[in-house]
Amino acid sequence: MSKNFEIIELVGISTQSISDAIQQVVLEVSKQKKVGWFEVTEQRGRVNSEGKIEFQVTVKIGTKINE
Amino acid sequence: MSKNFEIIELVGISTQSISDAIQQVVLEVSKQKKVGWFEVTEQRGRVNSEGKIEFQVTVKIGTKINE
Amino acid sequence: MSKNFEIIELVGISTQSISDAIQQVVLEVSKQKKVGWFEVTEQRGRVNSEGKIEFQVTVKIGTKINE
Amino acid sequence: MSKNFEIIELVGISTQSISDAIQQVVLEVSKQKKVGWFEVTEQRGRVNSEGKIEFQVTVKIGTKINE
Amino acid sequence: MSKNFEIIELVGISTQSISDAIQQVVLEVSKQKKVGWFEVTEQRGRVNSEGKIEFQVTVKIGTKINE
Amino acid sequence: MSKNFEIIELVGISTQSISDAIQQVVLEVSKQKKVGWFEVTEQRGRVNSEGKIEFQVTVKIGTKINE
Amino acid sequence: MSKNFEIIELVGISTQSISDAIQQVVLEVSKQKKVGWFEVTEQRGRVNSEGKIEFQVTVKIGTKINE
Amino acid sequence: MSKNFEIIELVGISTQSISDAIQQVVLEVSKQKKVGWFEVTEQRGRVNSEGKIEFQVTVKIGTKINE
Amino acid sequence: MSKNFEIIELVGISTQSISDAIQQVVLEVSKQKKVGWFEVTEQRGRVNSEGKIEFQVTVKIGTKINE
Amino acid sequence: MSKNFEIIELVGISTQSISDAIQQVVLEVSKQKKVGWFEVTEQRGRVNSEGKIEFQVTVKIGTKINE
Amino acid sequence: MSKNFEIIELVGISTQSISDAIQQVVLEVSKQKKVGWFEVTEQRGRVNSEGKIEFQVTVKIGTKINE
Amino acid sequence: MSKNFEIIELVGISTQSISDAIQQVVLEVSKQKKVGWFEVTEQRGRVNSEGKIEFQVTVKIGTKINE
Repeated sequence: MSKNFEIIELVGISTQSISDAIQQVVLEVSKQKKVGWFEVTEQRGRVNSEGKIEFQVTVKIGTKINE
Repeated sequence: MSKNFEIIELVGISTQSISDAIQQVVLEVSKQKKVGWFEVTEQRGRVNSEGKIEFQVTVKIGTKINE
Repeated sequence: MSKNFEIIELVGISTQSISDAIQQVVLEVSKQKKVGWFEVTEQRGRVNSEGKIEFQVTVKIGTKINE
Repeated sequence: MSKNFEIIELVGISTQSISDAIQQVVLEVSKQKKVGWFEVTEQRGRVNSEGKIEFQVTVKIGTKINE
Repeated sequence: MSKNFEIIELVGISTQSISDAIQQVVLEVSKQKKVGWFEVTEQRGRVNSEGKIEFQVTVKIGTKINE
Repeated sequence: MSKNFEIIELVGISTQSISDAIQQVVLEVSKQKKVGWFEVTEQRGRVNSEGKIEFQVTVKIGTKINE
Repeated sequence: MSKNFEIIELVGISTQSISDAIQQVVLEVSKQKKVGWFEVTEQRGRVNSEGKIEFQVTVKIGTKINE
Repeated sequence: MSKNFEIIELVGISTQSISDAIQQVVLEVSKQKKVGWFEVTEQRGRVNSEGKIEFQVTVKIGTKINE
Repeated sequence: MSKNFEIIELVGISTQSISDAIQQVVLEVSKQKKVGWFEVTEQRGRVNSEGKIEFQVTVKIGTKINE
Repeated sequence: MSKNFEIIELVGISTQSISDAIQQVVLEVSKQKKVGWFEVTEQRGRVNSEGKIEFQVTVKIGTKINE
Repeated sequence: MSKNFEIIELVGISTQSISDAIQQVVLEVSKQKKVGWFEVTEQRGRVNSEGKIEFQVTVKIGTKINE
Repeated sequence: MSKNFEIIELVGISTQSISDAIQQVVLEVSKQKKVGWFEVTEQRGRVNSEGKIEFQVTVKIGTKINE
C-alpha cells in the first residue's frame, strides 16, 4: 500500500459563512476518503437571486492513496 | 450598453467575524450596483480600544458597467 | 524606546471557525504584548480523531518593541 | 494638472478570443480617458448557454489623471 | 446531490493560438461534465519538429459534482 | 455613514526618488479624501528624454468611504 | 485520442531526501500513466516518532490523457 | 558540450494578438538558437498613436547552451 | 557554535524616506546581533496627525545564531 | 497550556545537499522545542573560498508553544 | 531591425539609498543600450565592514534589440 | 570597474538529485565568471527514455560584472 497522498481541489458552497463552506466540502470528502489535511486557496462568492451572499471557498484536500 | 465589468476594491470592517465583514461590504455595494462576483484578497485586523478583535477584510467586487 | 515593531508568526487552532482560531491566538498574544495589527497568511486544517474539522490559521502579528 | 496616473480594473468579455476581450475593454476606456498602458491580470471564462466558450479577461488600465 | 464543485487541471495543445488551445481542452471536458468556469494558470509552449510554435496552455476547470 | 474603506490605485511620478514619488501621489489624494493607509505594489520607471531616471511607483491607498 | 494532458497533484514521502520523495511518487505514477513532466510545488515535512526527518514533497505531474 | 539550458527573457510586440506577439519573438530567437521551451510571464500593452492596441508579451525562452 | 542563521521580521518607521526606515531598524538590530543580510518584504505607510507621510517598511533580517 | 503553535524561520547551511541543510537546522531546533512541521521557503547558496557549493536553505518551523 | 525588447537583470549597489542603487545600475546600462523601462524586483542588503548599510537592489531592464 | 552584479538564469540537468543538478550548473558558470550567490527558482523534471527520473532545476546566478 502506498504511503503517498493525492491532493484533490474542490469548491464548497454556503450562504452562512466561510467556515461552513469549508466544513461542507471537507466532511463530504471524508465520508469516502481518509483526509490527511486541507488548505484554503481561494475565497470567492456572489449575491444570489434572493439577495443573499453565497460563499464559494476553494479547498485543496490531501487524501491517503489506496486507504 | 457595455457587457464588460468593473472591479472595485473595498475593505469591510466587523468585530464579529471574517464572514460578517465580507457580508457588510458586499451587501452595501449591491444596494447601488449589480454585483457579478466577489473575491477576498486580504484578511487583516487589530485589537480595538475595548480589547476586542476588529476584522478588516479586503474584497474585490465585480460590478456590471452601466447597469 | 524604539518606535519600531516586531512581527511574530503564530498558528491559532479552533474546532469552531476560522474567525475563532484568529481570535484565540491574537488575544493570547495581546495579554503579553501591545498588538498593532495582524494579517492572516494561511488557512489549513484537518479532520480530528472525533471526525470534527480543526481549523489551523496562521497569523502574522505586529507587536510594539520594548513597550 | 497632475502628472500622476490612476489604475482602473475591468473585465473584457468575448466569445472570439483572449485578444479580442482585451481589445474590447481597452478601446472602450480609451474613448473617455487617455490610456497610458494596460496589463492582463487574470484570464477566466465559462461555457455559455449556446455551448460556446466565453473568455473573461481582467485588465488593469493606467489612465492619465485630469487629462 | 452535492452543490459543490470539483476543479480539474488540464493542458490544451494547439499550433494556432492560445485561445484555440483553451477552446480545445474546455470543450473536450464539457462533453462529459457540466463546466461551471475555467481559469488559465500557465502559458508555455515549444517549437515543434516542423519549426512551428506549439502553444501548451494550462487551465483549471470547475465542474459540478455528480451532475 | 459607512465604516468601510475604498482602495484606489495610483502611480506617482518623480525624477528624485522612490520616496518622493510616493509622497507626491499620497499627499495629492489626501487633499480630497481621508487616507487610512497606503501600500507600494510596484516600482517601475524609465530614462526620460533628458537622460534622467523617472521613478513610476504604484501605490494602493485606503480611503474612508463618505468621509 | 486526445493530445491534451491532465495534471494530478501528489505528495511523496521519504526519510532519506527531497529527491527520493520525488522519485517515489513520480515512478509510482509512471507505472500506470504516461508521464510528460513533473513540477515540485511545495516542500514540507516533520520529525517522526523515531526522531528522524520525514520529507513531504508536493509534485504536480502532467500525464497523457487516454494513453 | 553542456547538457544545461540558458533562459533568456524577451518582449514580443504585435498589433494583431497575444499569440502573434509570442510567435514573433520565439521564432526570431529560434533562427539563432535551439529553443527547448518558452513560458509567458507578462501580458502588457498600450494604445499606439494610430489608436490601435499594441500587445507587449514577455516570454522566457529556454535555449540549449553551446548548441 | 551553530553555523545556521535565524530570520527575524521587523517594521522600521520613518517620516523621511523608505531607505531611512530600513536604516533605522537594521542598525538597531545590528547593535545586539551579527546581521548577515536583510530583505525588504513590504512597504506601507500612513498620513500622520501632522499631515506628514510616515513610511512603515517591513524587513526580514538574517542574524547569526549564538554569535 | 496553549494549543497554539509558533513559527520560527531559520537558514540551514550545508556543503553536501539541500536535504542535509534542512536536516541540520530542523534537528538542531528539535533538541530544544517540540517540532510540529516544517516548510522550505527559499533555496539559495554560494561558491565558498574552497570552490565548493554551499547550500543555504530557509525553513519555517512550527513549534508547540509552552511545550 | 527587430521591434522586440530583451530583458536583462542586474543588481545595483549603494550605501546611500534604494533610489541611488537603482540610478547606479540603470544609468550604467543606458550608456551601452537603449533602455525602454525598468522594474525593481528585489530589495536586499547587508551591514558592511564599516558598519554602514549597503543596499542591493535587483532591477529588470527592458532594452531595445539591435538598437 | 563596476561594483554591480548581473543575474543569469540557467537550468541544470541531473539523473541523480536536485542538489547535483544545482552543483552541475553553478560550478560550470563559476569556471568563467565570479559567482556571488545563486537562488533556485523552479524544480521540474521528466521520466527519460530509460525510465529514470531526470531533474531539471532552474537557478538564478548572481555574477560580478567585468570581473
